[in-house]
Amino acid sequence: MKKLKNILLTNDDGIGAKGLRALEEMLRPFGKITVVAPKEAQSGMSSAVTITHPLRLFEHSQEERLIRYICTGTPVDCVKIAMNQLFTNNPPDLLASGINHGANTSSALLYSGTLGAAAEGVLYNIPSIGFSLATPHNPDADFSASIYFGRKIVEQYLLHPPISPVFISVNLPDIHLEQIRGIRLGRQGKGAWIKEFDKRIDPHGYPYYWLTGAYRNDEPDAMDTDQNLVDHDYVSVVPHQLDTTHYAEMERLRKIWNFA
Amino acid sequence: MKKLKNILLTNDDGIGAKGLRALEEMLRPFGKITVVAPKEAQSGMSSAVTITHPLRLFEHSQEERLIRYICTGTPVDCVKIAMNQLFTNNPPDLLASGINHGANTSSALLYSGTLGAAAEGVLYNIPSIGFSLATPHNPDADFSASIYFGRKIVEQYLLHPPISPVFISVNLPDIHLEQIRGIRLGRQGKGAWIKEFDKRIDPHGYPYYWLTGAYRNDEPDAMDTDQNLVDHDYVSVVPHQLDTTHYAEMERLRKIWNFA
Repeated sequence: MKKLKNILLTNDDGIGAKGLRALEEMLRPFGKITVVAPKEAQSGMSSAVTITHPLRLFEHSQEERLIRYICTGTPVDCVKIAMNQLFTNNPPDLLASGINHGANTSSALLYSGTLGAAAEGVLYNIPSIGFSLATPHNPDADFSASIYFGRKIVEQYLLHPPISPVFISVNLPDIHLEQIRGIRLGRQGKGAWIKEFDKRIDPHGYPYYWLTGAYRNDEPDAMDTDQNLVDHDYVSVVPHQLDTTHYAEMERLRKIWNFA
Repeated sequence: MKKLKNILLTNDDGIGAKGLRALEEMLRPFGKITVVAPKEAQSGMSSAVTITHPLRLFEHSQEERLIRYICTGTPVDCVKIAMNQLFTNNPPDLLASGINHGANTSSALLYSGTLGAAAEGVLYNIPSIGFSLATPHNPDADFSASIYFGRKIVEQYLLHPPISPVFISVNLPDIHLEQIRGIRLGRQGKGAWIKEFDKRIDPHGYPYYWLTGAYRNDEPDAMDTDQNLVDHDYVSVVPHQLDTTHYAEMERLRKIWNFA
């Protein structure tokens, strides 16, 4: 196993999440761990940053070769404050985010704080991986298979790192280790949420709206999407880039749009 | 000028922003306007969604062929609640977001609520455009050139719409109309923020951290990036996709990573 000097961990379920303990366990054999995690749960925070009020950074706890900090902001704030206050001269060799209590496949990538933190790592040129367990947000989910397969992926990552500026998104099916059929490189699937609000009436007669919804899979038959790999008991691994320019459309529109 | 039935507007600076008034003025000649804007300023909210508490939706004001609502959530929440509560059977013909008080070029795309709302429109298959004025967050910025050039872009968009699922990001230089050198199709530039925190000590002796920073342009000589186009007095127009899979890296890693 390749040894690293410093590993930075964060998540979006907050410092107390079981998935963060599992991520620590997954990565402790690889090197010294620094955790900078949100004080509060930050699900659905995407790449949000905190602009209107200042942040605080507190030491939380220490164990052998493991130190934990709490940041009062978002997952991306956690990465930024770690890089600017704790790793000013010695960037970490790996940034890992998660393990999220819930899948981050398909268009969930847009909303995911777990993957927002991993994307942020790319801006600092740190190898960055986000881990998500496809459990329906069970706080007591079983992460033992995630730890086993996560280590296999990190080992391959360190042996043969990506050559492009990407972060890796790993989605793990919520089943027992022996039921998992393997690890597959895949792509981001297409889909969206429908019927997104549960409208209720408050005791004073006024409506309020809970965000909820059902997932509509727009590629139910494609066997190489993150969503379908996880649905079929595979661990899905997708490399993601930050540049979202649609180059073909750019060239096309450049030829036909006339601004004279 | 092509006429539309329904146009949905939102922004991330909140219902009271001057940039939202400018967007209304830009688009009123094209059709009936429905505004669903955040109650509070939501800068830096990216594609964040509100999960831990419910949303409220209020009617704010009406004018001829213009109705405004306030939503208590993020820009993406505004789009979602508009689509699920106001446009259930008749999707809008255009979604426009902005005009943001501040540029949304390069890696700012990650954090932008303005573009988070435009990206969300793609999930509903609505033609979606985000507008941003490269002003240093001046609340009283001059949007007159933005209105002029924005209309030109919308006209071309409606004449020759993109054929791919993209949203368009428009960044406008903060100069007078006659100083603007034209409109250019470009790509998302590479860069990141550095020195991101202003550390201060509170009256009780404890540190706190304001997010701030300077932009580091990693492609200062590329004349086709959003950042450099705006810096050189052009209006930058970039089509963006939601799929961030790095396909070449996926194929490469599929061949060399060995999970046996």
